[in-house]
Amino acid sequence: MNLQRLEQQIAFIREVDKLKTIRRQTLLTDASRQENDAEHSWHLALMALVLAEYADSGGIDLLHVLRMVLVHDLVEIDAGDTYCYDQAGSRDKAQRESTAAERIFSLLPPDQAAETRALWDEFEATRTPEAKFANALDRLQPLMHNVFTKGRMWQKHGIVKSQVIDRNCQIADGAPDLWAFARDLIDKAVDDGHLAP
Amino acid sequence: MNLQRLEQQIAFIREVDKLKTIRRQTLLTDASRQENDAEHSWHLALMALVLAEYADSGGIDLLHVLRMVLVHDLVEIDAGDTYCYDQAGSRDKAQRESTAAERIFSLLPPDQAAETRALWDEFEATRTPEAKFANALDRLQPLMHNVFTKGRMWQKHGIVKSQVIDRNCQIADGAPDLWAFARDLIDKAVDDGHLAP
Repeated sequence: MNLQRLEQQIAFIREVDKLKTIRRQTLLTDASRQENDAEHSWHLALMALVLAEYADSGGIDLLHVLRMVLVHDLVEIDAGDTYCYDQAGSRDKAQRESTAAERIFSLLPPDQAAETRALWDEFEATRTPEAKFANALDRLQPLMHNVFTKGRMWQKHGIVKSQVIDRNCQIADGAPDLWAFARDLIDKAVDDGHLAP
Repeated sequence: MNLQRLEQQIAFIREVDKLKTIRRQTLLTDASRQENDAEHSWHLALMALVLAEYADSGGIDLLHVLRMVLVHDLVEIDAGDTYCYDQAGSRDKAQRESTAAERIFSLLPPDQAAETRALWDEFEATRTPEAKFANALDRLQPLMHNVFTKGRMWQKHGIVKSQVIDRNCQIADGAPDLWAFARDLIDKAVDDGHLAP
């Protein structure tokens, strides 16, 4: 056993515990509090298991999807969660997150640091079938939570239907059937008065 | 698309959000609060990615390990977290968790309900290489958190070294090198006065 290698791996595992303290602009479905990035990442991974059959290209590599969703938010340990409708925060998001990726992934042994960086880059680029599906889940999950909590966070931030559609239509690239389902949820949220038209 | 099937899958995904409210007897590494089952499950999945090379049998199916760790605590939505050193709570744990598994997994379409039940049964039986590795991680993670937080939860519950060894020696079955590492952590915790001898 290479003890230095194991110590690097353990240091990374210890550092990423901080993901549990990064708060998102999404409520739990019981609306008791905002969820954090670690919980969110687990929920996406579970959704990937359950919903894999809806991936656009059918034969996706599910392990690869799971690898991506498990690490996709680690950069937010340093960069924080940028609310998806925050235009000011979105301007320097890429730079902040890239700097964070450099620091956090470098805690790992070089081979695993490079692998993890590649997974994050792939998720962000959203070009491969696996990245498209992972990104679709990353949009669908908070959308569902907003619907289940009667749009409370949409209302708090003054979000309207067209913004929700612009933000989430990318689901169609990774999982067309899930976008059809999401579109119905959005219309229903407007009909129920939970989302401004 | 089979809408009834999708609605069952979404109902399950909504229900399991409750895992984020099940509190464990493990502190975050910054000792700010106890972690919950969803965060814990994410942390195990990430550990599986990083530490797969230490699995005893080498050629484990990593996707299978991830499937298991992502669902292994879902039964605690109904059954609650039974502290691993709680002998009274452990007596009826199997029955409580089996009843919970029946209800929660049955929210899924029948094929996925059966698959998920099989994953949970496999994790609990701890016989396959994947289940042994997943169980090793499920023990190593709280052990590390106890060490990183100076044994505060051990002290709170009056746990001594022999109990920690009895509880965790199973790590050796799934990942011998990680048990050697854990053994050193335990000895150091005693030397540092964080764990009673």
